[in-house]
Amino acid sequence: MLLPVIIAFIYGESDWKYFLLIIAGAAIVGGLLYLIKPSKRRMHAKEGFIIVGLAWLVMSLVGAIPYVLSGLIPNYLNAVFEAVSGFTTSGVTIIADIEVGSHAILFWRSLTHWIGGMGVLVFMLALTPIAGGASMHIMRAEAPGPTTEKISPKISQTAKWLYIIYLALTLAEVLALVICKLDVYKSFLISFGTLATGGFSPLNSSLASFTYAQQVVVIVFMVLAGCNFALFFLVVTGKFRKAITDSELIGYLVTTAVVVILISLNVYMVREQFDTFGEAFHQSCFAAVSSLTSTGFAAYNYNLFPWFSKALLLMVMFIGGCAGSTAGGIKVSRWQIMIKAVRRYLRERIHPRSVNVVKFNKKEIEDEVVGGILIYFAIFILIYIISMFIVSTEKNMDFTTTFSCVATTFNNNGIEIKTVDFGGYFNFHWWSRIVFIVDMLLGRLEIFPIVLLFTWLFTPVRDVYKKIRHKTEY
Amino acid sequence: MLLPVIIAFIYGESDWKYFLLIIAGAAIVGGLLYLIKPSKRRMHAKEGFIIVGLAWLVMSLVGAIPYVLSGLIPNYLNAVFEAVSGFTTSGVTIIADIEVGSHAILFWRSLTHWIGGMGVLVFMLALTPIAGGASMHIMRAEAPGPTTEKISPKISQTAKWLYIIYLALTLAEVLALVICKLDVYKSFLISFGTLATGGFSPLNSSLASFTYAQQVVVIVFMVLAGCNFALFFLVVTGKFRKAITDSELIGYLVTTAVVVILISLNVYMVREQFDTFGEAFHQSCFAAVSSLTSTGFAAYNYNLFPWFSKALLLMVMFIGGCAGSTAGGIKVSRWQIMIKAVRRYLRERIHPRSVNVVKFNKKEIEDEVVGGILIYFAIFILIYIISMFIVSTEKNMDFTTTFSCVATTFNNNGIEIKTVDFGGYFNFHWWSRIVFIVDMLLGRLEIFPIVLLFTWLFTPVRDVYKKIRHKTEY
Repeated sequence: MLLPVIIAFIYGESDWKYFLLIIAGAAIVGGLLYLIKPSKRRMHAKEGFIIVGLAWLVMSLVGAIPYVLSGLIPNYLNAVFEAVSGFTTSGVTIIADIEVGSHAILFWRSLTHWIGGMGVLVFMLALTPIAGGASMHIMRAEAPGPTTEKISPKISQTAKWLYIIYLALTLAEVLALVICKLDVYKSFLISFGTLATGGFSPLNSSLASFTYAQQVVVIVFMVLAGCNFALFFLVVTGKFRKAITDSELIGYLVTTAVVVILISLNVYMVREQFDTFGEAFHQSCFAAVSSLTSTGFAAYNYNLFPWFSKALLLMVMFIGGCAGSTAGGIKVSRWQIMIKAVRRYLRERIHPRSVNVVKFNKKEIEDEVVGGILIYFAIFILIYIISMFIVSTEKNMDFTTTFSCVATTFNNNGIEIKTVDFGGYFNFHWWSRIVFIVDMLLGRLEIFPIVLLFTWLFTPVRDVYKKIRHKTEY
Repeated sequence: MLLPVIIAFIYGESDWKYFLLIIAGAAIVGGLLYLIKPSKRRMHAKEGFIIVGLAWLVMSLVGAIPYVLSGLIPNYLNAVFEAVSGFTTSGVTIIADIEVGSHAILFWRSLTHWIGGMGVLVFMLALTPIAGGASMHIMRAEAPGPTTEKISPKISQTAKWLYIIYLALTLAEVLALVICKLDVYKSFLISFGTLATGGFSPLNSSLASFTYAQQVVVIVFMVLAGCNFALFFLVVTGKFRKAITDSELIGYLVTTAVVVILISLNVYMVREQFDTFGEAFHQSCFAAVSSLTSTGFAAYNYNLFPWFSKALLLMVMFIGGCAGSTAGGIKVSRWQIMIKAVRRYLRERIHPRSVNVVKFNKKEIEDEVVGGILIYFAIFILIYIISMFIVSTEKNMDFTTTFSCVATTFNNNGIEIKTVDFGGYFNFHWWSRIVFIVDMLLGRLEIFPIVLLFTWLFTPVRDVYKKIRHKTEY
């Protein structure tokens, strides 16, 4: 939060005091908590999940305070929505008019993307290595995707490398945008949003007013942000061949290409909006990449697209980027392994005595991992149905709009495909807004940390309930 | 097809000749095929699946001919759509004006439901027992649901019992409807549609013009048709206690009750359509049961319901009835086992060293069965996405309508929730209609027989392709 303070000073704004207040408060509370010494220091997977879940919850609750204090979002629940949307890199905004926000507060808003993109705790691991298996459990719980490839045997080394790559790419985009004549402040904000696949823009029209060249820069960096960051490390260390033959990368790039071609053909053939194929291709490229990488920037009003393209944009939200990237969604590799598992199952039903293994990236995937991915899909469906069910209680909403609002939050996407113009997320009832907040957290942390956090938080309640029942029974 | 011939004679209609023509043709082709003696007589699961898939395909292609010959549906593809919708008990009609059809042809239309409901091959097993494991494989492939409970150790006995219960329930409904002053002809047609959870009605307005009492009779028999038929056998043989403590039955009834209460409260609270809560409850009951059991009868225009109810009707399509019933959908027990598998997985992640088993109906479920159900969900999603993708190419269709058309065909449901009034399924392009036909077959036969049939049909093509490639390579 020191960065927005600096921004406030540069632009002569008064918002610095709110940020300093929160820094002071956090320091005091943190200092007091530091006095409590834990009785046990050993950590398992469970503790890793709960730490991550708890950290993200606290971070969101604290990160929302600047919005309330500055008056940009007076309602605290809405402020939490915006903070969660930021940290989870969803990029769904609840603010009706973004442009009235001060430079400092909008900087903070985009910075939450950048912090959340790679993971707050991964960042802390890079700075302060913890002994033992603790850091590994935290890393696994916070990093997106089914498998965490080890760049370095040391977790703190891995975390450091990831952040160096992340920072380098961000600065590269800032540089490219500045060269394309965007001012430095906006370049930083857009770059935070791109590399974190977030999608917050300091402008109400998102990126629609940007020049052609600026939009191309954003497209390129969105594609890069959707790649597994471990691959960049391979490229840096000269293992270029290994990086470009990665099965997930190939699947990701092929999917992107197919979606871009389909949307541009569809948009061009309908022929109402664009005169040249070049223009249709450019807009389709931006739309497809923005949705597939779960960034959620918009260079056009996608609700004017024909339905085939809209349905595609909605469906690719569920694919998302690669594991180990900052993108949301279910991840390309999960879909690939799921399809392979289905094929193996069918093969085994045709030839019951044959032995088949699921291979991915030339490596055999253990049955446990395959089972975990199938379970992930199952849990995903269950949460989706529950969310849809609650949000459906809204009046004057149709199925498409509720489906797409859940899709865009749960997949941390940010693109709005809607048939009912509900005006903004602040028009939803408080229960729907809470569903969206929880869905964004579930999506970003890939379900388990949040589920385990809730189980853990409700354990005392359950114990009390059990005691009461026990007493009444005897 | 002898039954519609009789109906034609009773009503003095000329349609009997078409049916006799097809009977003669089928007898000749069948007789010729009988001359070919198979070299191998042993059967495995694979052959069972392919026999079922092939039988259903041929049956649909032949069952469509009366529609074309009688001139009710001149287009053959549309006729196949109607035949498949009948046999798979979907009840989605492609006919714009049903009431112009003759008594004989509409009787055939509803009879396809009744034949398809319990399974054609199961019916044949009841009449002509085949030696060895062959009949078991066929039964498993055709009967809906993850597990087939054995009523009797002999498959032909089981099949016979199932058909006796099926016939008894059908006649009971006919009797009840006749008592409620519906004419005998219509009572038979509606009963065929109810017990098979089909949904074809001889009237354009489905069941909207029926009296209150008649609709209540249909509701009761829809609920019964959604139950596992093995449970009726238990009741008949005096094991009443075992039948009513069945976990799936309880889940099914509780789900039905909850959905009915939610929809009736929602419909009543919006207060635009119904004056009394009684009326709202009656219509909600009919709608919820019709959708949940995948029957698809309509006693009201459900598109006038508020969105929460419409979304619920759409979502419960995916639940469907019990395994071993004639209902479509994913089946209650699959959902129950899936939820239990998810809970076990979460428990194992919290306590890695604990050993947990998935129990259902007081029996331990093998890991293989649980894995098969998870794979089923995965394949279901994949087919759903592919179908949505193809149907989205239709112009002037929105997301809700394409989603709901795929849902209603894939789940063999028949209820139409639409935001775009597309007029009728004949307005879809041929490729979308083929998708619907394939989806209905996939839904009814629970995916594998059809997938294996296609693999088997394309094996010669693949072999030829391999040979060509082999030749060009060397």
